[in-house]
Amino acid sequence: MQDRTKIKAILEAEESAILGKNVTVCGWIRTVRDQKSFAFIEISDGSCFSTIQAVADAKLPSYEAKIAELSTGAAIAISGEVVKSPGNKQKYEIQVSSIELFGTCPNDFPLQKKRHSFDFLRSIAHLRPRTNTQGAVARVRSRLAYATHRFFQERGFVYLQSPIITASDCEGAGELFQITTLNLDNPPRDKGKIDYKQDFFSKPAFLTVSGQLNAEAYATALSDVYTFGPTFRAENSNTSRHLAEFWMIEPEMAFANLNTVANLAEDYLKCLIQEALSCDQDMQFFNEHIDKGIIERLQHVHDSPFIRMTYTEAIDILKKSNKPFEYPVEWGSDLQSEHERYIAEEYCKKPVILTNYPKEIKAFYMRNNEDGKTVAALDVLVPKIGEIIGGSQREERYDILTKKIEAIGLDPHAYAWYLDLRKYGTVPHGGFGLGFERLVQFVTGIENIRDAIAFPRVPGQCEF
Amino acid sequence: MQDRTKIKAILEAEESAILGKNVTVCGWIRTVRDQKSFAFIEISDGSCFSTIQAVADAKLPSYEAKIAELSTGAAIAISGEVVKSPGNKQKYEIQVSSIELFGTCPNDFPLQKKRHSFDFLRSIAHLRPRTNTQGAVARVRSRLAYATHRFFQERGFVYLQSPIITASDCEGAGELFQITTLNLDNPPRDKGKIDYKQDFFSKPAFLTVSGQLNAEAYATALSDVYTFGPTFRAENSNTSRHLAEFWMIEPEMAFANLNTVANLAEDYLKCLIQEALSCDQDMQFFNEHIDKGIIERLQHVHDSPFIRMTYTEAIDILKKSNKPFEYPVEWGSDLQSEHERYIAEEYCKKPVILTNYPKEIKAFYMRNNEDGKTVAALDVLVPKIGEIIGGSQREERYDILTKKIEAIGLDPHAYAWYLDLRKYGTVPHGGFGLGFERLVQFVTGIENIRDAIAFPRVPGQCEF
Repeated sequence: MQDRTKIKAILEAEESAILGKNVTVCGWIRTVRDQKSFAFIEISDGSCFSTIQAVADAKLPSYEAKIAELSTGAAIAISGEVVKSPGNKQKYEIQVSSIELFGTCPNDFPLQKKRHSFDFLRSIAHLRPRTNTQGAVARVRSRLAYATHRFFQERGFVYLQSPIITASDCEGAGELFQITTLNLDNPPRDKGKIDYKQDFFSKPAFLTVSGQLNAEAYATALSDVYTFGPTFRAENSNTSRHLAEFWMIEPEMAFANLNTVANLAEDYLKCLIQEALSCDQDMQFFNEHIDKGIIERLQHVHDSPFIRMTYTEAIDILKKSNKPFEYPVEWGSDLQSEHERYIAEEYCKKPVILTNYPKEIKAFYMRNNEDGKTVAALDVLVPKIGEIIGGSQREERYDILTKKIEAIGLDPHAYAWYLDLRKYGTVPHGGFGLGFERLVQFVTGIENIRDAIAFPRVPGQCEF
Repeated sequence: MQDRTKIKAILEAEESAILGKNVTVCGWIRTVRDQKSFAFIEISDGSCFSTIQAVADAKLPSYEAKIAELSTGAAIAISGEVVKSPGNKQKYEIQVSSIELFGTCPNDFPLQKKRHSFDFLRSIAHLRPRTNTQGAVARVRSRLAYATHRFFQERGFVYLQSPIITASDCEGAGELFQITTLNLDNPPRDKGKIDYKQDFFSKPAFLTVSGQLNAEAYATALSDVYTFGPTFRAENSNTSRHLAEFWMIEPEMAFANLNTVANLAEDYLKCLIQEALSCDQDMQFFNEHIDKGIIERLQHVHDSPFIRMTYTEAIDILKKSNKPFEYPVEWGSDLQSEHERYIAEEYCKKPVILTNYPKEIKAFYMRNNEDGKTVAALDVLVPKIGEIIGGSQREERYDILTKKIEAIGLDPHAYAWYLDLRKYGTVPHGGFGLGFERLVQFVTGIENIRDAIAFPRVPGQCEF
């Protein structure tokens, strides 16, 4: 292959370093404007949001034959000199000396130069990364993932790749995908029941809903760890907020209390916002075409200390608001989306960390507070998105945790290994989970979560 | 929580910055040696391989009561002054001024200070990160994962999180885990057959065996991408080389040929070796206790240009070797482990990139060479491990790819989207896959792949 220069490298170069240089750019044609004596060819290679403009003179060898084949979507390599662009749309353009055609693009190419609905684009998820929006989402998402690793690694957290296949249901919440190698049409049976001894893992197995329990095992050995992997929810929700398969980041810290967890959550979220704000062109695009004003809003969130208040305080505020909420506000019941939005968007106008929820509405592994009514849980609520992070200090007391497991009807024997972490050198510890696609939505302004992941999996759909 | 200082930070500090400082160290006790008038307490916090030694004077308040509770495995915070250690085992130690006990550790703690078999440790996978070996594996693995992201991000690759749940079988190789929300005991039926319309995705769905096909869709839009995620093989292999769930890294590049792929593979592998070699204490441990000489061997691999030869040349070498191989050497048949090891370990004594394999033994998506007999495939073979990377230039020609799909009995309609990538602006492209656990084995010398991942999933086992 010829040496290629990526468009990003050209556009970011100083004039002195690039003007007059001969380069080869490989990419896909966005548009061709044939002006008889020459043609403007706009090329994208995905290395950045911008395309680069190439100017091909009609005197080039076999120009006529070539120009006929150059259409939107075709793949080419063009070589030529980088010159200053006379227009003010771009800094540089390329004066073409030769064109190589890799692949033509027939007229039925679905991505002709016009606006397409996101619904339609989802139906061609294999081609949509060639659009402005999905190209930008892919690049920003990738940067946020890398920033996640950098954030935790620089703080000495160990990356734990927690298991995907599991025999346990972390939260006891149900909504699990079962995985099997049995023949569904005629599974082996023993006394009438499915004989799971013949299944791959010799017992029923499922896709994980969270890596937290495993992360706790590693945190209580290595102090600070984080997971970053796919998690699954077999929830039959056809909404713009739910995916059956989504990625989660779950840090877990030993020798930590709820305050340590809240501080980490705030630092991490601000680090991610900072990273997003540094994605200049892609964020400019989101700001202009997807969610006007998002850059300013992110900057505001980044610069504000997050408000911290207890669940009980939030209930007071909601009651005093005199707002006609659809769901009643009552101490002890879970906050609905409308409540969370009021608190974050209207009352605080910035992210809020709510703490100390009633124990009845939170998971069994959260630490009982001394008041006998609440647990050391937290949710981070952000304007427009609602809950983006949920976390807690974990119950580290063996006897109390055992009772909590029994109280919700789970079998402590199934959690024996998890209880061991409280039996042998137990420590105060805690962590949180952040849904990565919700984060992508938050920083890009993308409305539907199915556009925040490359190949969304939702009820009835696992194409590609 | 009190402010804690991690052991790594203390041990890596310059004398002038740390001597005389008061610190609090939180961690788990490895050993306590009670010398009547004082006690040596050795503490680990997982931040690095080393423990730190704390010296507690018997004159400390309630010393007697405390020392009785301090046993191997207990969790404590000790505060005190950092002083020079008179012994030469460690640079610094801590003169204890106070001890806080978080969690005691009863006598039945399975990790008493002695050697345990790796088999036994696997049965307590939730506690084994507290051992020297698994602590070191976890830290090195985490560093290698981060280095992977850094390597690709610095080269402008976009991280694609390819889907885990899929309706297609990438390689047509079978050995898939099926995922379902149907009631296995009594699934809905339509005309006698399982009614998959009622399953979560309205059709049979499986766990992915590779993200490559999806990566190709993104590479043919964004130029260079990589995946890093879990993949699955429902293979009933109870060996030290196979996992049912393992992590793979799959870079994919547009405008690339087999040579581009080979260069990337070599650069990436060397980057990973470099990263491993920088994990001082952990690698020292592997070098002394797991695989003597591994540091020297890795350095050798790092410093050598990889040998490149064709499959046909390798067959010639094997035939001329006059070695009594168990499997016959014949052009056209796949290389067995014994053949690969002879080439890499005995003949070349360094990593080898074998190219251009017979098309019959390679996957349908690999590019047909002009000779009509081989495809543009490559395998990277490393001494002691065998194949660690497999890759290829992909078949980018629509008609040829369609025929290849048909030839192995697959339905081209099921691959319509994949074929679209060849229809609309097709480009030469290629990539490779690296199994992350094999890499961890390669750089640590760990013999059994089940010890290279935190919670291994193998036939009959998905505990924890």
